[in-house]
Amino acid sequence: MDTSSPAIKEALQPIGIVHSPFKEKFGIPRQTGLIKSCLAEIELYPPFNNPDSTRGLDQFSDIWLIFGFHQNNNDWKPMVRPPRLGGNTKVGVFASRSPFRPNGLGLSRVELKEVITIGSKTRLKISCPDIVDGTPIFDIKPYIHYADANANAFCGFAPDAPKEKLRVEFTTSVDSDLRRLDVSIYGDLRQFIIEILSQDPRPAYKNNSELEHYGFKIYDLNIIWTQKNGIAIVENIDRL
Amino acid sequence: MDTSSPAIKEALQPIGIVHSPFKEKFGIPRQTGLIKSCLAEIELYPPFNNPDSTRGLDQFSDIWLIFGFHQNNNDWKPMVRPPRLGGNTKVGVFASRSPFRPNGLGLSRVELKEVITIGSKTRLKISCPDIVDGTPIFDIKPYIHYADANANAFCGFAPDAPKEKLRVEFTTSVDSDLRRLDVSIYGDLRQFIIEILSQDPRPAYKNNSELEHYGFKIYDLNIIWTQKNGIAIVENIDRL
Repeated sequence: MDTSSPAIKEALQPIGIVHSPFKEKFGIPRQTGLIKSCLAEIELYPPFNNPDSTRGLDQFSDIWLIFGFHQNNNDWKPMVRPPRLGGNTKVGVFASRSPFRPNGLGLSRVELKEVITIGSKTRLKISCPDIVDGTPIFDIKPYIHYADANANAFCGFAPDAPKEKLRVEFTTSVDSDLRRLDVSIYGDLRQFIIEILSQDPRPAYKNNSELEHYGFKIYDLNIIWTQKNGIAIVENIDRL
Repeated sequence: MDTSSPAIKEALQPIGIVHSPFKEKFGIPRQTGLIKSCLAEIELYPPFNNPDSTRGLDQFSDIWLIFGFHQNNNDWKPMVRPPRLGGNTKVGVFASRSPFRPNGLGLSRVELKEVITIGSKTRLKISCPDIVDGTPIFDIKPYIHYADANANAFCGFAPDAPKEKLRVEFTTSVDSDLRRLDVSIYGDLRQFIIEILSQDPRPAYKNNSELEHYGFKIYDLNIIWTQKNGIAIVENIDRL
């Protein structure tokens, strides 16, 4: 075994793709588990969608996804500015979960809600990941608590889940729009929007002008909002 | 964004290599955390060994390693026989942590013991991984407990750490060999051997003949042992 040369490994082949409500990076939670009120799905590609490949996976409540930050072109710098640190403090790329990293690999624990086998093909229904729609999946592994978790770990700048940053309100017209939307497609969309906006998805170097309007795309909708005195106000829901 | 075609991603480039006492797969614990009495090291390759890349990592007690099962040639089958299930029951490859898997990627949480910067180069001292010497590392990420762990997870056939399977004894001559070995090189080798053998590293389809002798290679040593009535007896320690 040659331990000296950094040989190039074979190219990765996606085993599947994520179908997620997040149609763009803006709005995506910075870690999993912050969003409770949406689901996503993994479509496995042949031959990985053979039901044999996932046999027994339904005995695990949680799974790891190793995926590709496919929108980032493997761009990386040695230091990054984590949003958690306000966007001004730099840390090493390997001391962060930044998507801009060597090899562009992401890692997320998600809850496995259902293994759906139709004919000879398998799809996985999962809790809402911090992953944009269309992301390639390179591996799925069962979460094994005794080996993967360490309740005594200290975790630097991310010791616990981020606090809610904004209160969220809806205009009367958005309220009535929300009541008309099909729950079987959008789930509890009102709650989903609250979960996204309460984290304040804006970049850390935002200005706080009250004139600024923002949008984020989930499902086939563009959610238009503004902020005033620490309150996010949802003003419009447009079809894409 | 094209979400339909399983495009091939760029080849992975190792960011570093593991220097571990395990010189072959036999003897390696099946998950991390089972071995307490050895350390390993990650040597980062340039340009990833620029100390900037790991700045702040020492604020985290635990890190994730995404690595390559480089000895396996990407061999995989849809179903595998986890040692944990006695080696006879098959489960899907994605319901296991088997090294024989599509894309050959491994994932381990290890404790970060020390970030060692010498001049412009960085090495990481880590707790003993379930990883063979010479393994290529593709990514290092901080372990973030609130996002990565789920204390309420159910974990199928691996609900808790495996029980100790063998009691471990040493012959008198091995005992005196152990006393002569340099602690600064081998650490608490006696305890290390106990931790390995108490898990019974033999394949699940072993026979239990008392005539069989086994060896496993750690550091520059070959540890020769046999078993009798559920007791592992260490009979010889040879230099490789």
